[in-house]
Amino acid sequence: MEEIKVFCPATIANVSCGFDVLGLALESVGDEMLVRKTDKPGIKITKITGQELPLATENNVAGVAGLALLQKSDYQGGFEIEIQKKIKPGSGIGSSAASSTGAVWAMDQLLGNPFTKLELVQFAMQGEKLASDVAHADNVAPAIYGGFTLVRSYDPLDIIPIPAPDELFATVIHPQIEIKTSDSRKILKTNISLEKGIRQWGNLGGLIAGLYTKDYNLIGRSLEDHIVEPIRSILIPGFDQVKSSVHDSGALGCGISGSGPSIFALSKGEETAQIVAKEMASVYKTIGLDFDVHVSKICSRGVASLMAGPKDI
Amino acid sequence: MEEIKVFCPATIANVSCGFDVLGLALESVGDEMLVRKTDKPGIKITKITGQELPLATENNVAGVAGLALLQKSDYQGGFEIEIQKKIKPGSGIGSSAASSTGAVWAMDQLLGNPFTKLELVQFAMQGEKLASDVAHADNVAPAIYGGFTLVRSYDPLDIIPIPAPDELFATVIHPQIEIKTSDSRKILKTNISLEKGIRQWGNLGGLIAGLYTKDYNLIGRSLEDHIVEPIRSILIPGFDQVKSSVHDSGALGCGISGSGPSIFALSKGEETAQIVAKEMASVYKTIGLDFDVHVSKICSRGVASLMAGPKDI
Repeated sequence: MEEIKVFCPATIANVSCGFDVLGLALESVGDEMLVRKTDKPGIKITKITGQELPLATENNVAGVAGLALLQKSDYQGGFEIEIQKKIKPGSGIGSSAASSTGAVWAMDQLLGNPFTKLELVQFAMQGEKLASDVAHADNVAPAIYGGFTLVRSYDPLDIIPIPAPDELFATVIHPQIEIKTSDSRKILKTNISLEKGIRQWGNLGGLIAGLYTKDYNLIGRSLEDHIVEPIRSILIPGFDQVKSSVHDSGALGCGISGSGPSIFALSKGEETAQIVAKEMASVYKTIGLDFDVHVSKICSRGVASLMAGPKDI
Repeated sequence: MEEIKVFCPATIANVSCGFDVLGLALESVGDEMLVRKTDKPGIKITKITGQELPLATENNVAGVAGLALLQKSDYQGGFEIEIQKKIKPGSGIGSSAASSTGAVWAMDQLLGNPFTKLELVQFAMQGEKLASDVAHADNVAPAIYGGFTLVRSYDPLDIIPIPAPDELFATVIHPQIEIKTSDSRKILKTNISLEKGIRQWGNLGGLIAGLYTKDYNLIGRSLEDHIVEPIRSILIPGFDQVKSSVHDSGALGCGISGSGPSIFALSKGEETAQIVAKEMASVYKTIGLDFDVHVSKICSRGVASLMAGPKDI
């Protein structure tokens, strides 16, 4: 195989009580990339459509992630990459992670799968480092593995894939304001009360148990974050109204996607997720803020080939 | 049925990263109780063997828990209780919880099961309140449900039973020193760093995932507590040596049982759990402290009838 076209899913990190550890991948929101083997060593970004992003390899997250892979490979050639951005950078649904992940996953496919998923996450994390100064795995892990992923530890990196129940749908609304990740990190407190910590790990335990047992009600009860959401939500206009409309619409629960400004909700079934989308949208229509809204099943397989034939992961 | 004999399992609360939320029940360590219907209303503790404990109903945890049940029942009669204590009070493996749980579970059986497990936990929690001033569910929940239990929330009380993998065994050593629960709670800090909090909920998520997937290695990697153990272990002589000997013996991991002074380890298979017991014991032999040591499978069913015939839970 000389070239491959891939789908790179958008992802939600910081899933409520799973701040900094739990992420999920979306099935119907993501970028597309075409990656092609070339004789010339190195990575060349030949084309980016949909967004204004740097073409220079070392300034592009896909380029940097790809270089990290090449460093660990004995392949003598190089790759050309075309990126069709559909995820808006800064939207809080893993735009940079999608590009980094797509690049390294496609290269691994073209080289005959020499790397493990964990290694691909580590390469893609270099793209995240370029994007946000922190080589975090919150978005690239679910983009690679699909479903939900728990980053149990960074030292050593330990990623636990957790299957998503079939009827679980996400609604994500992106109000068109800019929040810098550095700002949303700066306002977090370095200390929390033990009492709130206990509630957080109780809820995270409940959420993980709910995912394994497909107990949608338990998933909903566990989607509580008493630590980060009360602070970060201040930066998101209309957050409280959105949250209250989401609950009234029958969603299981909601929270901030990544470091915002997007807000996600989880629902049982697509129908409810669509109702939630309408209610979320009506809040921003009333406020007068532009927005994008997406409804998507949780993606069970992560980054995937868009070529004909059975998917090979 | 006019009387019933029950086994009331010992329990381990604060299972490592599951401080204040995760507990488990032991299969072969516990008290026995005989509970008998009487025409005379109220609860009478007729006999306690094995330990010196108060017989007056309102000063006995089983009595108080039983009174809480009677208050919610339309039963006009009463109960007599004989307790055969095998768990030492103050050992950190749920001595009071065993008595409270056994009493209310037996009464519920004799009355034809009018109550839910959640209600039985709530009655038994009144016994815990008498024993330690706090109506906590950490020990009574696993004693009622068996296996592991997660107390996700107290308001409202939300208990998630989590199955224990078949080959999971606990070793518990009880060095014969007294640590008051109030002292071990007093030395805890009211604030923790967000960074340690994140590690804790990452580990708890890993532990719950490991229990569902029977991934013993993941269970072991997740048995880390960077918040409570470093503080409370100071009160337990030889803790660091025990921990290090446990890891050398092939256990999955270890931690403080409840608020101490007992130390528990979890192992895959009874053979390893027995080796761990010997190694733990040798530490206290060297120090010169008396101790009890137990090896037990994780109890899948919780409190149970000791009468002939199939168990009715």
